[in-house]
Amino acid sequence: MAYKVGVMGAAGFAGVELVRLLAQHPQFELIAVTSDADAGKEIAETYPAFTGMDMPKFTNHDDPILFECDLVFLAVPHTVALKYAPTLLDKGVTVIDLSADFRLKDPDVYEKWYGVEHTATDLLANTKFGLPEVVRDEIAAAAADFAAGKPVLVSCAGCYPTATSLASFPAIQAGLSAGLIVVDAISGVTGAGKKASARTHYCFADENLEAYGLANHRHTPEIEQILGVSGENRLVFTPHLAPLKRGILSTVTLSVPEGVNISAEALQELYEGFYAESPMVEVLPAGTSPKTTSVTGTVKAQVSATLAANGRAIICLGAIDNLCKGAAGQAVQCANIVVGLPQATGLPTLALPI
Amino acid sequence: MAYKVGVMGAAGFAGVELVRLLAQHPQFELIAVTSDADAGKEIAETYPAFTGMDMPKFTNHDDPILFECDLVFLAVPHTVALKYAPTLLDKGVTVIDLSADFRLKDPDVYEKWYGVEHTATDLLANTKFGLPEVVRDEIAAAAADFAAGKPVLVSCAGCYPTATSLASFPAIQAGLSAGLIVVDAISGVTGAGKKASARTHYCFADENLEAYGLANHRHTPEIEQILGVSGENRLVFTPHLAPLKRGILSTVTLSVPEGVNISAEALQELYEGFYAESPMVEVLPAGTSPKTTSVTGTVKAQVSATLAANGRAIICLGAIDNLCKGAAGQAVQCANIVVGLPQATGLPTLALPI
Amino acid sequence: MAYKVGVMGAAGFAGVELVRLLAQHPQFELIAVTSDADAGKEIAETYPAFTGMDMPKFTNHDDPILFECDLVFLAVPHTVALKYAPTLLDKGVTVIDLSADFRLKDPDVYEKWYGVEHTATDLLANTKFGLPEVVRDEIAAAAADFAAGKPVLVSCAGCYPTATSLASFPAIQAGLSAGLIVVDAISGVTGAGKKASARTHYCFADENLEAYGLANHRHTPEIEQILGVSGENRLVFTPHLAPLKRGILSTVTLSVPEGVNISAEALQELYEGFYAESPMVEVLPAGTSPKTTSVTGTVKAQVSATLAANGRAIICLGAIDNLCKGAAGQAVQCANIVVGLPQATGLPTLALPI
Amino acid sequence: MAYKVGVMGAAGFAGVELVRLLAQHPQFELIAVTSDADAGKEIAETYPAFTGMDMPKFTNHDDPILFECDLVFLAVPHTVALKYAPTLLDKGVTVIDLSADFRLKDPDVYEKWYGVEHTATDLLANTKFGLPEVVRDEIAAAAADFAAGKPVLVSCAGCYPTATSLASFPAIQAGLSAGLIVVDAISGVTGAGKKASARTHYCFADENLEAYGLANHRHTPEIEQILGVSGENRLVFTPHLAPLKRGILSTVTLSVPEGVNISAEALQELYEGFYAESPMVEVLPAGTSPKTTSVTGTVKAQVSATLAANGRAIICLGAIDNLCKGAAGQAVQCANIVVGLPQATGLPTLALPI
Repeated sequence: MAYKVGVMGAAGFAGVELVRLLAQHPQFELIAVTSDADAGKEIAETYPAFTGMDMPKFTNHDDPILFECDLVFLAVPHTVALKYAPTLLDKGVTVIDLSADFRLKDPDVYEKWYGVEHTATDLLANTKFGLPEVVRDEIAAAAADFAAGKPVLVSCAGCYPTATSLASFPAIQAGLSAGLIVVDAISGVTGAGKKASARTHYCFADENLEAYGLANHRHTPEIEQILGVSGENRLVFTPHLAPLKRGILSTVTLSVPEGVNISAEALQELYEGFYAESPMVEVLPAGTSPKTTSVTGTVKAQVSATLAANGRAIICLGAIDNLCKGAAGQAVQCANIVVGLPQATGLPTLALPI
Repeated sequence: MAYKVGVMGAAGFAGVELVRLLAQHPQFELIAVTSDADAGKEIAETYPAFTGMDMPKFTNHDDPILFECDLVFLAVPHTVALKYAPTLLDKGVTVIDLSADFRLKDPDVYEKWYGVEHTATDLLANTKFGLPEVVRDEIAAAAADFAAGKPVLVSCAGCYPTATSLASFPAIQAGLSAGLIVVDAISGVTGAGKKASARTHYCFADENLEAYGLANHRHTPEIEQILGVSGENRLVFTPHLAPLKRGILSTVTLSVPEGVNISAEALQELYEGFYAESPMVEVLPAGTSPKTTSVTGTVKAQVSATLAANGRAIICLGAIDNLCKGAAGQAVQCANIVVGLPQATGLPTLALPI
Repeated sequence: MAYKVGVMGAAGFAGVELVRLLAQHPQFELIAVTSDADAGKEIAETYPAFTGMDMPKFTNHDDPILFECDLVFLAVPHTVALKYAPTLLDKGVTVIDLSADFRLKDPDVYEKWYGVEHTATDLLANTKFGLPEVVRDEIAAAAADFAAGKPVLVSCAGCYPTATSLASFPAIQAGLSAGLIVVDAISGVTGAGKKASARTHYCFADENLEAYGLANHRHTPEIEQILGVSGENRLVFTPHLAPLKRGILSTVTLSVPEGVNISAEALQELYEGFYAESPMVEVLPAGTSPKTTSVTGTVKAQVSATLAANGRAIICLGAIDNLCKGAAGQAVQCANIVVGLPQATGLPTLALPI
Repeated sequence: MAYKVGVMGAAGFAGVELVRLLAQHPQFELIAVTSDADAGKEIAETYPAFTGMDMPKFTNHDDPILFECDLVFLAVPHTVALKYAPTLLDKGVTVIDLSADFRLKDPDVYEKWYGVEHTATDLLANTKFGLPEVVRDEIAAAAADFAAGKPVLVSCAGCYPTATSLASFPAIQAGLSAGLIVVDAISGVTGAGKKASARTHYCFADENLEAYGLANHRHTPEIEQILGVSGENRLVFTPHLAPLKRGILSTVTLSVPEGVNISAEALQELYEGFYAESPMVEVLPAGTSPKTTSVTGTVKAQVSATLAANGRAIICLGAIDNLCKGAAGQAVQCANIVVGLPQATGLPTLALPI
């Protein structure tokens, strides 16, 4: 295979999804999986789906084998990527970061929302944002750098920002939004991570609906950055938790500016045009909702845009698998692009139909 | 017991929830349960929770025993209530209607959204709307009429309108909303009714999130009427389906008008004051989400209101059990008020804690 | 109200179910709820269904208010009941124990299966077993003692033993079983308790089926004791976990002894006769399965017995709510009997029909 | 691609799972998908996971394109395969049948359990049973016939028989079972098929456990045939339904014959030896339960065998995905073998880890 890769933080949910994808990738050879908590254990002990497969064991984050990799994926909590990314880059290893540490261009915004100092601000200027269908130039620049022999740092978009911006960016970029941008997103429980807690306990999550992170979820500034509305007090982002494992459905309601009118046909064309070269995004007809089950386990997204309120509003919908397109799948998609492979190489694109 | 009651449409989900509540009510004696489809069958054949209980059998809708009732609850599809309510009222029977037939004050709006003629427009003027915590004067007037010996027609609010208006009415009435009112509500599958279909099939609903009724759900004009924004193109109502049985969580995002400022404390006081005399509504602290599991099986609602976007927006949340507070429980609550009983008489108010 | 009661271990799942039942009981006044972990907290902080209710706060297990109670329910882990029951009894407080500490008549069996010494063996002789429909004389004796002014120790049956013995005891007692007694029981996740762990994590439990405790589950000797087959190597008990919150379905397959023949009619009569005076147990027709949803949240059980293998086997089925009839509901049922109330006093017997 | 294939009955759950697998198979080109009910529709209309994929439309069962296929998979109800298989074979098309029509060697047994006449008894003698890990010689004979240019009829094992016999066949074949063979199997709701009904309605299935088909499920004679105990009144097979989509866990309890003793080590070696050449079957250590989530969406099975009752019993466990290894996946596995490909060609073997 063409490239040696490793996953740091491989025992978490995004990490093990990376392991799943990389174990089946035709061009990436997975040689290292690290987890400080599970070091020494077989992956199959924690995730028995891997029973019987020949896989590397978990080692510690400081396992030097990572330096033998061409690319390392970081599926670690924020601040941990700040610690490891600089060294990996120094060693010439390209880093695909799934944490929040390098997503925000402005370190002050990072420090405000995450409550910690950004200790690698020198890397921010050259970090490439990983959301290929929306922030197109950055991932292209990363590929050019990699082709030129430079190690690259790609910071992949978060799960909610991915679903939300895929759903709404074409309309917002086209000037179809004034005033509040209302994002109500619903996530499955994998979004809450592997840690056992009251929130992730089956008996508290099952049959329950609730919102959380009211007015203060950390994906807020990231969505503002992607949509280009930072500092405008326009975004109201309310995440919700529902009883399923994988999937995010983001509903973005836009207020069409006074004096602006758009027909349903033009809106549909806008979306289809915007995603014409994005094979991972399916644009559904207006009035149709994406379903999370249509994309579970895949790197695909489904979106639609529908006029409402007699043309004064647009309902933008986007569905993804939060662990795949919203995390590990998007990271591998970015890695594919960086190394010059077709973006879907080795990635599942067909969900279980039932 | 003080009053004889019947349920028309008792084999549907709202109907059988009425049966559950009335079977345990200390002042209502359930003497008739009708279902044209299930006539002749025991309730326990369809709903085995009733196994071993001494219950009336299903009879047809035209069973004259209904005329022996003091009150009849109509849990029938729209247009069926139009057919039966006039005769029941003529016979002196008070009608508590759970259908949509008498909810909209303007028959033209009814005909536009439901696509059928309203054949009992003469009853509309004296129909009382059943949402006691919000439309307070109407249910009080109904009680006065009943006390005066007149049969009464109460048209109970729908499930989404109940959750949505309990969440947002205090803020909207207080002038805290300009521009779009964005309602993203999530419902369990009981909301889709008893009919077996692709939508209600376990294997299509499980693990899935989707929106539906985009820009055209029939609860839209009802919500507009309650909130007082009919004809203003301000409401964007998007219902969603999630994999649980009972529960609606409605998230209403309001845009605070320019020049208006409200503190978090004042907002909290507004809500607590508004519901001070409403024992079925719990106002939670700002920043706290209601949970559907906290109200499942009960006639209670939980609401909260939280400032967002640096004070330029309010996130209003409301959780109910769609079959209980959103349908059967509210109907019995209305019936209690109409006949002069304490409103919670015989109604469950404590959910399973786990 | 007639009796003051307390719950020790009220923050666990069985404990909070006791709190739910006792909060609505017409003759028991709940004056104490203890939890060493949650002492000082409101119940509603952990279980928001109680929001807005006037409830006692959690205090420590050694809160002397427990000595003011007429009855104390112990919903604590094994060994903790061993510690507290003797003192309570000394103080004249009747103890209804939901733990395993006093279920096994033989302390050697206890020590073998639980791996700890039994430190209150002197109490075993006079402990009454709490499974009123099966071990009838013991609970009657407890009531007689209580009426005579003596404090009583009732040790309630476990969840699996309750479902299993209700399903199979009539047939086994009638001599219809030879050789292996095969018990395959399926439980919801509440059976695994409140502790957050990989087993109770939503994302590991959802969509999963597995067996556990293979050949070594601690309910094995308890079932053997109730069924009267201790030491005979006849019981094979395999518990399973399925993705739901509440409910146990126990399937007991009996091998009819050679030379013994029973007709379907006689089998049905046997069961109906055995439970003729047991209002909490519904005997369904042969060939019909109990459903856990028919008893969720209630103190009822459903059972059926069906001939199979051309009459050479019997399939016995029993469904209960593991937290209610399998734990807290049965404990209150026992308490009702002990103090001389009708056994269903204050207990829910009608599940949500949908 | 090497072979043209078609799916008859492609709109049902097993059928669409075949479509999923064949759409991604490197050597089978899917040229026909038939459904009398959905003829003319796109697959994505019913199963939106296929949105955006270039797939054939549904046509009628009598579409002559089926005769252009090298192999046709029949995912139709029983009796429909009786109708179509003979013609296809006459035309030289190899048939992989997923229905029950050709599973039972004895047409009298078929007619007894299915209540219809077997109209193609002449085909039975040369039908090959499709359960490659257990009935090994038949699939090998099919491959030899195909290589010799003869069209072949493979009748694939049912879902419960697959899980049950993979779990217990090694022990039964080794003489470790006397008396009753007790099979308690639990299935997800996809096992009940695509038809919307009370059984498959989300609101009846969710949170529910029940048994069904008590003493009369049609997979009984098929299991008896595979295990070699037909006519012996030894099998008690009780299927159960649990709230999940995909998965069967079969628990088979065997009574070890008097005088026979086997050690845990020998039992483990027996299983590991039996499946040494079966890469789709993972043998877990004794005491370990298979999990359905470990095999969901894959053609793999997990099994284990554990001594119980002081060595007098064996608990055999087997987990599969009922739609994949239990239906479509096994059918493609058989097809691979028949045409001479490695058996796992194109088949998923790694489940989502979470």
